[in-house]
Amino acid sequence: MNIVTPKIELIASTTLTNTVEGGPKIEDWMSLDPDATDAECLVEEAGRGCYESWDKPNPKTARNADYISRTAFEMQHGSILEHASATFRFSGVSRAWLMEMERHRHLSWSVVSQRYVDAATFGVVIPPAIREETGSIAYHSALEGPASEALEWWSGDAMWHYEVLAHRLHSEGLPRKQAREAARSVLPNCTEVRGVVTGNLRAWSTILPLRAHPSADREMQEVSMLILDALEPVAPTVVNHLRYQIAYPGKETA
Amino acid sequence: MNIVTPKIELIASTTLTNTVEGGPKIEDWMSLDPDATDAECLVEEAGRGCYESWDKPNPKTARNADYISRTAFEMQHGSILEHASATFRFSGVSRAWLMEMERHRHLSWSVVSQRYVDAATFGVVIPPAIREETGSIAYHSALEGPASEALEWWSGDAMWHYEVLAHRLHSEGLPRKQAREAARSVLPNCTEVRGVVTGNLRAWSTILPLRAHPSADREMQEVSMLILDALEPVAPTVVNHLRYQIAYPGKETA
Amino acid sequence: MNIVTPKIELIASTTLTNTVEGGPKIEDWMSLDPDATDAECLVEEAGRGCYESWDKPNPKTARNADYISRTAFEMQHGSILEHASATFRFSGVSRAWLMEMERHRHLSWSVVSQRYVDAATFGVVIPPAIREETGSIAYHSALEGPASEALEWWSGDAMWHYEVLAHRLHSEGLPRKQAREAARSVLPNCTEVRGVVTGNLRAWSTILPLRAHPSADREMQEVSMLILDALEPVAPTVVNHLRYQIAYPGKETA
Amino acid sequence: MNIVTPKIELIASTTLTNTVEGGPKIEDWMSLDPDATDAECLVEEAGRGCYESWDKPNPKTARNADYISRTAFEMQHGSILEHASATFRFSGVSRAWLMEMERHRHLSWSVVSQRYVDAATFGVVIPPAIREETGSIAYHSALEGPASEALEWWSGDAMWHYEVLAHRLHSEGLPRKQAREAARSVLPNCTEVRGVVTGNLRAWSTILPLRAHPSADREMQEVSMLILDALEPVAPTVVNHLRYQIAYPGKETA
Repeated sequence: MNIVTPKIELIASTTLTNTVEGGPKIEDWMSLDPDATDAECLVEEAGRGCYESWDKPNPKTARNADYISRTAFEMQHGSILEHASATFRFSGVSRAWLMEMERHRHLSWSVVSQRYVDAATFGVVIPPAIREETGSIAYHSALEGPASEALEWWSGDAMWHYEVLAHRLHSEGLPRKQAREAARSVLPNCTEVRGVVTGNLRAWSTILPLRAHPSADREMQEVSMLILDALEPVAPTVVNHLRYQIAYPGKETA
Repeated sequence: MNIVTPKIELIASTTLTNTVEGGPKIEDWMSLDPDATDAECLVEEAGRGCYESWDKPNPKTARNADYISRTAFEMQHGSILEHASATFRFSGVSRAWLMEMERHRHLSWSVVSQRYVDAATFGVVIPPAIREETGSIAYHSALEGPASEALEWWSGDAMWHYEVLAHRLHSEGLPRKQAREAARSVLPNCTEVRGVVTGNLRAWSTILPLRAHPSADREMQEVSMLILDALEPVAPTVVNHLRYQIAYPGKETA
Repeated sequence: MNIVTPKIELIASTTLTNTVEGGPKIEDWMSLDPDATDAECLVEEAGRGCYESWDKPNPKTARNADYISRTAFEMQHGSILEHASATFRFSGVSRAWLMEMERHRHLSWSVVSQRYVDAATFGVVIPPAIREETGSIAYHSALEGPASEALEWWSGDAMWHYEVLAHRLHSEGLPRKQAREAARSVLPNCTEVRGVVTGNLRAWSTILPLRAHPSADREMQEVSMLILDALEPVAPTVVNHLRYQIAYPGKETA
Repeated sequence: MNIVTPKIELIASTTLTNTVEGGPKIEDWMSLDPDATDAECLVEEAGRGCYESWDKPNPKTARNADYISRTAFEMQHGSILEHASATFRFSGVSRAWLMEMERHRHLSWSVVSQRYVDAATFGVVIPPAIREETGSIAYHSALEGPASEALEWWSGDAMWHYEVLAHRLHSEGLPRKQAREAARSVLPNCTEVRGVVTGNLRAWSTILPLRAHPSADREMQEVSMLILDALEPVAPTVVNHLRYQIAYPGKETA
């Protein structure tokens, strides 16, 4: 078995047509702060449109970062965060992680199918507590050593059963998709899942602090912090607030 | 290991206050058809309110069943189906089933936690293709016989690893929740999940035909038909239409 | 014009099959508190299922009201509130109210159509600030007196224009629906809207404190309190918490 | 009064990090079709990830446009359309339009507030049927002429009442926001609304054919076609399918 670790890559995000080469230029866009990202400019533009406060009379919110801090976080006008989104490609995360993340309704998922794709290509994800465990007491007749080695060995065994089952059902006449669909029943929670996930800034702002919280599953915590890192170039002010909320649970703003 | 089979029980649904003993009686409710269920009366009441067509001038839709067929299905005014909901208790279904069902955003789930509850109480769900498979070729050194027996044996092995891992991590100092959270990494897709799920009639109308379709996972198909059976006392006209759509995919109405 | 005031009636809610006469009895339901409502029993049942804590070992949460306070509010396990819902018939509220309420995505609406129904039957909703205003300075050539009388007079004028426009367009050959669709362009925000709205307890718990907040539109505040009153027989513990949050904004629990 | 007409401008959309100058380059991105837009490349990438069909073995779907037609429309694998979104700035549309559009839950709105912004800046939207009406029968004591002139005149009258009410309530001691909140009760459906709306390609694909359908409100139809035009540079293949569905209601694909 191939031990894999989580990998989160930003592959797409919302950009202004002004930014795209050859795109139409919006002359009358009032709220462009040269220091701000496209995503956070769009959030400000949408927010100022509600009050048509284009002239930025309040110096405390003249800068984009201050505007977003004040409006989206202090005033909790969270809907303006919905206009910009970020898409990540992920791998090296477990089916247990996916099962919990899918519960959030405002993310969009495209995930490798266990019915269509041969599971032999999937790695095994070692949970943090097992990865860090340093015990060396034998727990399996075939193995002495740390739990992570046992899990790796066991995952290989599960994969062997998967392959035998899929082959046997297919050779007995089932189409390959239906053979894999049945054989996947042995695949464990630690089986790697790969895919693409998209969420807008409001969705990420709701989900990441919840899933980075100390009471969350530890893999969830780790991956949430990786998503936060990957989101930072798109929405640095938002990420800054989320890091604060994660560091000081229960507090919205500094 | 305990082999389990799917069980779906209706435990709650929407009823009219008129129906509840001692409840307030709505005198001016015009659309009560004595042959209709509470849920489908409510759908009709909501629909007629859009047009304030209380006097039922059209004999073709004077009966509740005809009204719902015409309005919610032929005219595709699906939003009126959202007012009534049904809650089911389920058991004997697999984590693979849950993973796919959770993707639908309009159901509400409360599911037994693999982090809090000892997995030793969970049964094993044999996929239909393996359940029906009658081969007897040995595929494991320890076993000759049909695949279902192999899967049962193997699930027991997975559970043994789960218990050893959970015990070992807990005895090394991890709180029980965190020990189980790590140990659950070996639990396979065929592990039973139990819980409660609620959906309104529009959600069930969207999801059940998709998941009862011949191209869906076979466990999904079987469980969708069980949900349909359990939904029938709540919404017989709706279920009648869904059965038709399932029998004749691509057709909305007879 | 007919001045109307808001009216909110509970017309349906979630009940247990156990409660319905002749319904199937769930013998193994462990969490039924005889003092609790069906909706709140269902919430507890769903919540306990996540931990399979049927035996209620914690005396602090043995009563249903304590369980819901602790789990859904203190621990913020809000998803269990999604299983029970309540449906209200409403009238005497304005289109301005509807426009803001519709923004919440988790309510289900069936509302009288301005395209199908003759607006002559709609009343006029006087906003609280105008209703209470006691000035008597003339502001219209045709009127001296308080603003509420001016608004009532003016709404009658708007309705007159609506009727003339609808009649004229229809007599020039437009079908009645299209004539009304165009003529409704003169109908003001204070035009009454009637209909049916359904939400689960989590939706109401999110929306009502926001819309009863002193910074909300005053009509929104008033109607939110009426919905709260109507919801109380369905979910008294939940309503108790919401009243607390409304009285002490920013605090989740006592 | 200022008569306004609908204006829809694309102001932002999803782009690949590969495209952004200085952005990280994804070397192993297999599905980039040089003729495709960023948004539709992302949709293909997400879709191929479900089957890990990177090698494009099927020549019928080797081109991006063919892949999207086949997968998202013929096979109805609509979830892959959720990864890319488009944001439009709009003006010159009516409150009646907004009320209907808001009912769709998968759009994100930031709209000019009638509580914070002086309504004197809002134009009047003449419905298509009134705009085109050529009658010249007097219908108001103060006016002979086509209905559009009458509506314009009447909207000016409504605005006058709004301003008098807002001024009077403010001068009697109400804060400006609360004075406008009450005074807006006279603003009619034909009052202009301006703002920003974001939707992903699946949301637009669901909503635009519904709202461009001949049975929809005529302003809805017109504005839907304008949104379609503005969406075309982002997602030409998707728009092509939607135009087909609009031209041939009930057909998904050619």
